[in-house]
Amino acid sequence: MSHQELSFSSQAAPAQAGDLVDHVDTPALLVDLDAFEDNLARVHTRVLQAGLKVRSHGKAHKSPAIAHRQLAAGASGICCQKVSEAEIFVQAGIKDVLITNQIVGLRKVSRVAALAAHATIGVCVDHPKQVEQIGDAAARQGSHLDVLIEVDVGHNRCGISNAHQAIDLARTIEQYSPHLRFAGIHAFRGSAQHMRQPQERAAAVNSAVEKVRGIIHELETSGFPCTTVTGGGTGTYMLEASSSLYTEVQPGSYVLMDTDYAANTPEADSAPLRHALFAICTVISVQAKHAVLDGGLKAFAVDHGLPRLQFPGWAVQTLSDEHTVIVPEDGAAPLHVGDKVRLIPSHCDPTVNLHDWLIAFRGQTVEEAWPVSARGALF
Amino acid sequence: MSHQELSFSSQAAPAQAGDLVDHVDTPALLVDLDAFEDNLARVHTRVLQAGLKVRSHGKAHKSPAIAHRQLAAGASGICCQKVSEAEIFVQAGIKDVLITNQIVGLRKVSRVAALAAHATIGVCVDHPKQVEQIGDAAARQGSHLDVLIEVDVGHNRCGISNAHQAIDLARTIEQYSPHLRFAGIHAFRGSAQHMRQPQERAAAVNSAVEKVRGIIHELETSGFPCTTVTGGGTGTYMLEASSSLYTEVQPGSYVLMDTDYAANTPEADSAPLRHALFAICTVISVQAKHAVLDGGLKAFAVDHGLPRLQFPGWAVQTLSDEHTVIVPEDGAAPLHVGDKVRLIPSHCDPTVNLHDWLIAFRGQTVEEAWPVSARGALF
Repeated sequence: MSHQELSFSSQAAPAQAGDLVDHVDTPALLVDLDAFEDNLARVHTRVLQAGLKVRSHGKAHKSPAIAHRQLAAGASGICCQKVSEAEIFVQAGIKDVLITNQIVGLRKVSRVAALAAHATIGVCVDHPKQVEQIGDAAARQGSHLDVLIEVDVGHNRCGISNAHQAIDLARTIEQYSPHLRFAGIHAFRGSAQHMRQPQERAAAVNSAVEKVRGIIHELETSGFPCTTVTGGGTGTYMLEASSSLYTEVQPGSYVLMDTDYAANTPEADSAPLRHALFAICTVISVQAKHAVLDGGLKAFAVDHGLPRLQFPGWAVQTLSDEHTVIVPEDGAAPLHVGDKVRLIPSHCDPTVNLHDWLIAFRGQTVEEAWPVSARGALF
Repeated sequence: MSHQELSFSSQAAPAQAGDLVDHVDTPALLVDLDAFEDNLARVHTRVLQAGLKVRSHGKAHKSPAIAHRQLAAGASGICCQKVSEAEIFVQAGIKDVLITNQIVGLRKVSRVAALAAHATIGVCVDHPKQVEQIGDAAARQGSHLDVLIEVDVGHNRCGISNAHQAIDLARTIEQYSPHLRFAGIHAFRGSAQHMRQPQERAAAVNSAVEKVRGIIHELETSGFPCTTVTGGGTGTYMLEASSSLYTEVQPGSYVLMDTDYAANTPEADSAPLRHALFAICTVISVQAKHAVLDGGLKAFAVDHGLPRLQFPGWAVQTLSDEHTVIVPEDGAAPLHVGDKVRLIPSHCDPTVNLHDWLIAFRGQTVEEAWPVSARGALF
């Protein structure tokens, strides 16, 4: 057989429905459906009961299978960060997508304007040039987009800073093109999500709410009402939900969770969300004072620290590209070549982005293999 | 049009032949062909003139397009770390692949044994259980594999430690199955690659050579000659090449390079390899004291530090999932929304693994778009 005739399914799912979890090929990501469903129900119930919309952030999971479950559990739409992610979600049947990001460049604005012919698409802006590029593309495509002004509420990344800028930008949106509609405010402070204490997070969100409230007042006084005020994440969604200002929240990590989010002390009236995302690895080498797993930096993002091993008496020591070295305490039970162990990722979003599949399981059994369809969607 | 009829090429290449480099969609990885070809020629010439084989490591680039260029420049084969990577390289016509890793698990050994019917495939072992699994799979498939014993030469990861273990393992390989052939020694010290001073690297390689020489002597005395002694990387390949022991070297990063490798002081008789790998990003937001690029943790691995910006007077401050914040020195030229800038990744292997494409350019023009076909090949 010549190599041209070979056909390998190198990217085939590492498990299928009915497999035992311990037979999943490794390294792979597992989603514990009991924990996933519990997190989904708790967050959605809380937000919907407060009268806000849930717009789940798809950047965390990049998986239409999860997005559809979020919609079935009451989400009114999803967010994402990239035009290419939005394309994948719309192609999978999602009808309402907000891209919580500035879209710049001819290729990208053409794609997002084309996409807006098939779904309700929103984008964020903080500069007139973004408005002009998107407006020109929408006019060429004959489509219509919602445009939200991003306000910097302490994240120190994108966003305008004051009401004067907001009014100028709202005017540009409304006047530049009939294909654009000024839809409101995007105000998200990523750093607040990871503040450990509830009072720190409350102070950060209160400060954001105060700033946004002032800007909205000035906008409305100038004739630019804000239909939507959107923001908040897994760390703060309860605070935005009780703000009497935000109309929707954007939690993403809540369905999966990670060690970084789990390090937050929860609000007094709230139990911590459950770990639903795990990695499973195989022990491929056992040495006198350590063992080696078959996943490393290409299976785990480490920007928020090392993954946490779930095997008594053993801990992660270091990761290299394809390996994780783990070490035992005195008296820890031995591990053997071929044993499988689970780990909890430290940062779910970039970890999921390293995998083509999420293996959803309940108890000891795989129920579904979910493709991470927007994995690597960078554009 | 219903969503079922939509078809987006979300993973389409960000550029094609003939495009200007500054028109590449972002964030994307660029390969400067002049630097790439220079690195390729210099390393291969040095190794081939020393009488060793070059077995280029495919884990760095995961791209058959690059592997074929390495073979055309005299490489005798390639290495990789995963069975699924090996499948992709063999499917692309590569006939000699060494998996420099322990292969454990029924699914993986079945796949590697099947692959060995189509190409020369080598694997590494450090435990009899690995030998037995692979031997059983090769017997089922009727294929034959080369098996190398990995020796731990100070990397403290996988590998046996002494001649006694080596002889036992060589005997197991030869006796367990006629489908396995004991082929020699794999001895690689990853940590030595990144030692900054030539004398540190020389001491590390000398120590490895001494240990391996002793083990080989004992193996040969016991009737197990070592055809192949393989190891070495971009940081040390010149030392293994002059060792009179190694028969082949395994550099991977040399064709692309990154800031971490560039921080090594080169050997006295050697000029540094050139940066051939760059990222290109777009400025999507400009603020009073910073600007924001459209690529972050999903475009750059940061385990070896932040990427280095190539724009005068500006430096990378921080990365989040989809953004990089850059800050100017006093007096730096301003950046504007829509400007494109280049950055040098800190660690090429896991950065390339985040991208589906490498855009090969010369001067101002794109020559080819190389798919990163083994991107995410984890199994």
